[in-house]
Amino acid sequence: MFQPLTTRNDGPIAHLVMDSPGNHNALSLQMIAALTEALDRIAASDARVVILSARGRAFCAGHDLRQMQAMREGPDPQAALTDLFDRCSALMMRIAALPQPVIAQVQGVATAAGCQLVASCDLATASDQARFGVNGIAIGLFCSTPAVALSRAIPPRAAFEMLTTGDFIPAARAADLGLVNRVTRPDRLEEETRALADSIAAKDPAAIRIGKAAFRAQAGQALPDAYRIAAEAMCTNMMQPATAEGIAAFLDRRR
Amino acid sequence: MFQPLTTRNDGPIAHLVMDSPGNHNALSLQMIAALTEALDRIAASDARVVILSARGRAFCAGHDLRQMQAMREGPDPQAALTDLFDRCSALMMRIAALPQPVIAQVQGVATAAGCQLVASCDLATASDQARFGVNGIAIGLFCSTPAVALSRAIPPRAAFEMLTTGDFIPAARAADLGLVNRVTRPDRLEEETRALADSIAAKDPAAIRIGKAAFRAQAGQALPDAYRIAAEAMCTNMMQPATAEGIAAFLDRRR
Amino acid sequence: MFQPLTTRNDGPIAHLVMDSPGNHNALSLQMIAALTEALDRIAASDARVVILSARGRAFCAGHDLRQMQAMREGPDPQAALTDLFDRCSALMMRIAALPQPVIAQVQGVATAAGCQLVASCDLATASDQARFGVNGIAIGLFCSTPAVALSRAIPPRAAFEMLTTGDFIPAARAADLGLVNRVTRPDRLEEETRALADSIAAKDPAAIRIGKAAFRAQAGQALPDAYRIAAEAMCTNMMQPATAEGIAAFLDRRR
Repeated sequence: MFQPLTTRNDGPIAHLVMDSPGNHNALSLQMIAALTEALDRIAASDARVVILSARGRAFCAGHDLRQMQAMREGPDPQAALTDLFDRCSALMMRIAALPQPVIAQVQGVATAAGCQLVASCDLATASDQARFGVNGIAIGLFCSTPAVALSRAIPPRAAFEMLTTGDFIPAARAADLGLVNRVTRPDRLEEETRALADSIAAKDPAAIRIGKAAFRAQAGQALPDAYRIAAEAMCTNMMQPATAEGIAAFLDRRR
Repeated sequence: MFQPLTTRNDGPIAHLVMDSPGNHNALSLQMIAALTEALDRIAASDARVVILSARGRAFCAGHDLRQMQAMREGPDPQAALTDLFDRCSALMMRIAALPQPVIAQVQGVATAAGCQLVASCDLATASDQARFGVNGIAIGLFCSTPAVALSRAIPPRAAFEMLTTGDFIPAARAADLGLVNRVTRPDRLEEETRALADSIAAKDPAAIRIGKAAFRAQAGQALPDAYRIAAEAMCTNMMQPATAEGIAAFLDRRR
Repeated sequence: MFQPLTTRNDGPIAHLVMDSPGNHNALSLQMIAALTEALDRIAASDARVVILSARGRAFCAGHDLRQMQAMREGPDPQAALTDLFDRCSALMMRIAALPQPVIAQVQGVATAAGCQLVASCDLATASDQARFGVNGIAIGLFCSTPAVALSRAIPPRAAFEMLTTGDFIPAARAADLGLVNRVTRPDRLEEETRALADSIAAKDPAAIRIGKAAFRAQAGQALPDAYRIAAEAMCTNMMQPATAEGIAAFLDRRR
């Protein structure tokens, strides 16, 4: 049976590699299911950080248009399409809710829901050859769901220009806008992503999990609510044994 | 009777030209009414995109201070001023709610509520001679209503500096901050704006309308609510005949 | 008795100088109390703007780790730590609620809750030698409460990278991200901060107070609510005598 995703553990790093170059790693129902299941496994594992990468020329070309067109022409298009978008949105929110940080490693073009996937990860690295677009509008389908993630990662008017023109932006521009954390030469992309992942994996995993959950939970809340959420996280974090040791070691070094 | 606004249709592009250079295209009650009426007409028309430009040296100098001062000295200042700000805020929200994208084409200075007008449009182009300021504070009137639009377009601390110092920023800085999408030489401004408008007008208008509405509706919502709104928009968009044709044509080309 | 904070009035400018270089101006319970009391006094004073600076090599190194460790090992760690974070969050929200704008003048490193302090001020200036980090994660304590302020000042993914790697950014990068308004040579920092403060102090103080309160209150609100808040502020501002004079003087000059 065709597997659109390969997974691999490398010490504390879980690798997810989209491996369906034939359809540009499209977010077919199969790919969405494979990513969701893999993330569920990772959530329950002792992995400390996830690298999501892709094989082939494209990172991810977005939804599988052939599949969508078949749904549209099927017996209950509304139900089938709603189900598809619900599954895709659930995947994006699964990344946000995952205990571990997820880094998108973008080696090629990230289009439509593929760009949404990058924007839904916690961090992103990119080759200087990568390009980003939400260009569904070019075929008459405004990228409304990708807009949810994109408009929370970059300034609103830059997002709206991309959404209404369908124009692509290069990796350097994506970095300026805040979509991408680091841009490198293609031959340095894996190494650079690995260095970022190693830096996170070297930290106390309980602290990272507590912190990511609090970071996501406080976003968009009013200041008093945000601080209540964050203060609870700080207390929980302080009571971890490794944190006590970390603080003690720091105070000892300073003394 | 004096008309502070001229309107013109050029194929799918609706042009609104503020044409009151004598008072720097101030947002008088007359200008607010003329813009609101013109937008209402455009909403019901088959225009696909709107370019809002201005004649004269200034793009828009903000509220008509003489009119405001008269209200303040009139029989019921509180009622008159509340009515003015309500009408102006309604105009700004009318742009957000308009089915069509609105591009501000800024050839000169955009001040106070004039800067708010730029920030309330969906997109903006600017001459490299244009400048932007929310300088009401210079005469003792903090630009609180302009701050609503400005602080949703650019980073908060940059907005607060502009609001408390009254300092102007050049077009290049406005582009860096995300207020302006494209900056050009003055003699290229119309052409560049037109190219942006043409790109949007060439897209399926139903998709643009569905998408703009979803983009605005999901902004600031919690992630699950935002995705619910956007997924509904995607389904509606998918069921448009032109979208089915667009996807079919794309799949044919690829095959 | 040791005083970790010195205060000084210079005309309309209130200076708060963190003066505990021995512990890198840590936000101990004493420092939090001293800052809170000083801000309460300033709120009731006729100061027009506040400059918050620091003596020594560091601006502020965040929480007092020795104090936190003692709480953790005390009879009721949960209660003691909750109280500490509540007091610290209250201080940060006290700055937001202060009638006067507060400028952080950052001469050295701003770490963890020290970086939160910078992000909680309304504006910030920095020496080009200053650095910013939320590096609690390096000792196993994710900076969840600093994340609240930081993620409201800079793009979310840049914030998350700083939080999970613990890496520091230089002042120039902090300016690019929107955390800092102005970067200068170290020997020009006071002068530059003073110029910014003077610009604000020269404005009508009632307008600044009304405007800052509206700016903070409208943040994160839906557009109609934000405009309702801001329009009320505009009306109140318009009825101030100094504002009437400012507008009249402006109209006279123009005539």
